[in-house]
Amino acid sequence: MRKKIVLLLIITGSIHSFGQQPAYTSNDSLTIRNIFDEALLKGESYLNLNVLCKSIGHRLTGSPQADQAVNWAQQEVSDYQVSKVYKQEVTAVRWVRGDIESVSVQQISPSPQKSHAKSKLEKHKLYATALGGSVGTNGPLTAPVVEVGSIAELAKFTENELRGKIVFLNGPMDKTQISTFDAYGACVSQRYAGASESASYGAIGVLVRSMTTLTDEHAHAGSMSYKKGVTQIPAAAISTSDADMLHEYLQLYGTMEATLNFNCYTAADSVKTSNLVAEIKGTENPEQIIVFGAHIDSWDLGEGAHDDGAGVVQCMEVLRLFNALNIKPKNTIRMVLYMNEENGNMGGKTYAANAKLAGENHICALESDRGGFSPRGFSIDGKEAQLAVIQQWQSLLDPYGLHYFKPGYGGVDIGPLKNEENRVNEDIMLLGLYPDPQRYFDYHHSIDDVFENVNQRELELGGASMAAMIYLIDTYWSKFKTN
Amino acid sequence: MRKKIVLLLIITGSIHSFGQQPAYTSNDSLTIRNIFDEALLKGESYLNLNVLCKSIGHRLTGSPQADQAVNWAQQEVSDYQVSKVYKQEVTAVRWVRGDIESVSVQQISPSPQKSHAKSKLEKHKLYATALGGSVGTNGPLTAPVVEVGSIAELAKFTENELRGKIVFLNGPMDKTQISTFDAYGACVSQRYAGASESASYGAIGVLVRSMTTLTDEHAHAGSMSYKKGVTQIPAAAISTSDADMLHEYLQLYGTMEATLNFNCYTAADSVKTSNLVAEIKGTENPEQIIVFGAHIDSWDLGEGAHDDGAGVVQCMEVLRLFNALNIKPKNTIRMVLYMNEENGNMGGKTYAANAKLAGENHICALESDRGGFSPRGFSIDGKEAQLAVIQQWQSLLDPYGLHYFKPGYGGVDIGPLKNEENRVNEDIMLLGLYPDPQRYFDYHHSIDDVFENVNQRELELGGASMAAMIYLIDTYWSKFKTN
Repeated sequence: MRKKIVLLLIITGSIHSFGQQPAYTSNDSLTIRNIFDEALLKGESYLNLNVLCKSIGHRLTGSPQADQAVNWAQQEVSDYQVSKVYKQEVTAVRWVRGDIESVSVQQISPSPQKSHAKSKLEKHKLYATALGGSVGTNGPLTAPVVEVGSIAELAKFTENELRGKIVFLNGPMDKTQISTFDAYGACVSQRYAGASESASYGAIGVLVRSMTTLTDEHAHAGSMSYKKGVTQIPAAAISTSDADMLHEYLQLYGTMEATLNFNCYTAADSVKTSNLVAEIKGTENPEQIIVFGAHIDSWDLGEGAHDDGAGVVQCMEVLRLFNALNIKPKNTIRMVLYMNEENGNMGGKTYAANAKLAGENHICALESDRGGFSPRGFSIDGKEAQLAVIQQWQSLLDPYGLHYFKPGYGGVDIGPLKNEENRVNEDIMLLGLYPDPQRYFDYHHSIDDVFENVNQRELELGGASMAAMIYLIDTYWSKFKTN
Repeated sequence: MRKKIVLLLIITGSIHSFGQQPAYTSNDSLTIRNIFDEALLKGESYLNLNVLCKSIGHRLTGSPQADQAVNWAQQEVSDYQVSKVYKQEVTAVRWVRGDIESVSVQQISPSPQKSHAKSKLEKHKLYATALGGSVGTNGPLTAPVVEVGSIAELAKFTENELRGKIVFLNGPMDKTQISTFDAYGACVSQRYAGASESASYGAIGVLVRSMTTLTDEHAHAGSMSYKKGVTQIPAAAISTSDADMLHEYLQLYGTMEATLNFNCYTAADSVKTSNLVAEIKGTENPEQIIVFGAHIDSWDLGEGAHDDGAGVVQCMEVLRLFNALNIKPKNTIRMVLYMNEENGNMGGKTYAANAKLAGENHICALESDRGGFSPRGFSIDGKEAQLAVIQQWQSLLDPYGLHYFKPGYGGVDIGPLKNEENRVNEDIMLLGLYPDPQRYFDYHHSIDDVFENVNQRELELGGASMAAMIYLIDTYWSKFKTN
């Protein structure tokens, strides 16, 4: 039926018309089939991910592994006959986890009025990890715990109630959201802004429920940020199973106290690191750029396999596919592996600022940063007419399981390219690869984000999907000009 | 854009018209939202799968666990306020694996003319498993190996070349098929029919490459069958890594011999076992039945988690959801957990034969037997007008990630209901839940098909998708009458 629909729409001209040019040709079908065959039969993304995860490991900005990963990727893509490959300097803040990291809770005093709480609860160690950007505790920090359901719920408390306390932000991700990214977006503010919001009530520390729909025993890391002018208090994530337990304890005993001990810190000097840029020069419009990328840094608890090693090796695979299949793009296609997405976004900001400075004209920017799962399509941050062009390709891409072409978010790293201060081309369109979203937050920022949890075919299909989309945008680039 | 399309189609009346009745109502939207919320927040399928896999285990027809699983499911669904629940007797052939199972290969003699083959290759043990239905070897069986690329390639050999040999059927699954089920369908004949086809050339044993797109070290089991009048020769699957190695050995040494040793057998007496049937009586047309099911038996190497424990617990969840949400179906909705899908299909055949005998009118039959992965829709074996009714629900189901509503296969267990000899209702439509197909054959019939490899959300969404589809078919049942 889908074919009938597309045909009908073209005949009735009910969507934007682009002259008599067809939506795609049989040559496009053939090229895309070749892209998928090549990726599934001779793909290198899975092996590359193995090296990135197992030989290099996690890649926090400023760590030796982060720079090692950039060097490795530079060497690898050199084999793919790119026109040029180079590092782009990025200056970033360096946060260091330190070697002391513990959270425990204990009962403040027995509650004799409750019959089932006869003896004082012994110290209970939690699965916890300091949030990225947090200050250390400067030795053990002990205070009573106050549970708060969300940032919004803080408003229900008075300063008196929270002064000197450790705030426990226990907002869960909403499991009923079919897209787990929607659930994440709805409550990640407690992790990012929870410390400063709580500090403004006089709190002296923050514990945040990990951002996952699972009930598991892993702390899921992530970044936080301090508001200017507010006291900087330490913040840590605890596992969802411990968050549920702490909630139960508070119900049972009424009061609990927590002891936080972290020696994480932000280094006084910023660090010089880099993005990796590699491109295949366009044969017709080399000055017009289709940029695609992923972030090469990662959190330091797992191996950064889904987040975002998968995206990195998929982007490298795009270059390999164009080379192996001898696809000569009309416009320049450029891969950027961004540094520092996780805690600062200086890679994305630096790339965009440099592009502005050079007056570079980007047709679009594409990003893969939602895990190496079975691809379903793309979320598109562009004009309605641009979206319509892409949706006309639906019947072409449907045989590859790609059906999702909807308005939506591009990605953290490519966002700055569209910000007013960096924009060269008013028509710039952002696209995010949209894989199946069910498993992402099982692994996200935790020790479980390892190579073993990435499926080879799913990963390979994602890289091929990106290559197919880049090929199509390159072929029909003029349709994306709206002026 | 999808909404616009549906609207356009309705306005222009370009698909089958069903009077003025709308495709669905806002009440349907609400009910389906409730189904998904309930499944994701209070679903019991994941816990049930844990019990089925971990407390009961694998469930080959005729094993104590298979009957234990039926009893367990009967008890569980009794809690879901069903109108009735009962066992339906099934008589099946019982195949027994036995306790001796080994395959090894060795060089027949050194090949001094090849410089890199200086000494005789020692006996090399392979990862292997007897195929279900195979005869035993009656002690070690040693013979030279001849590699054949597929059943079709057998025709290139003369009887002389294969007489007394062990045929090694090494056809790989085609990785370029986006649906791994298509790749499986294209070469599973070598497993199912390879023994008899080879025996007709005088071969005395068969080794078959495991049916998986992975290169792994697990033998993937599966059923085979003997043609009447052809000598019954033993058949085993070997791991894909061993198949690749054996291929290399044959290139290197020219000749190899294999030793097979199995004491599997088919029991002289058939076994009495059962399907489990549970239903909620229809409020308006109790005599019209919507049947949905999965198979409760499994292969004996893993835990039958994806195949088909996932389907079993999803079907049980459908009953729970109807009960928890107080959805009263107009027609009778009936769950069947079929026995013996893996090696005989006697559960499906028995159910259909009994239904015919009782003159039962099935509106449709739905099956979940493609693993507990993220659901994408349904493959539909029905008339064009019926397919069109379902496709009109696309915009209603799209928010749940369901986009695939295409003509296709229903399933092994429900197939007999549509066979001419069993058909009561000419309009009977078959539907198969269609989850993402990328990972299924990584686990299929191997020791890796265990609970740990099933994702909770993916499993829960599948059960909810089935409940939503059953709810919609029940609500609009009259649209599926084509006469």
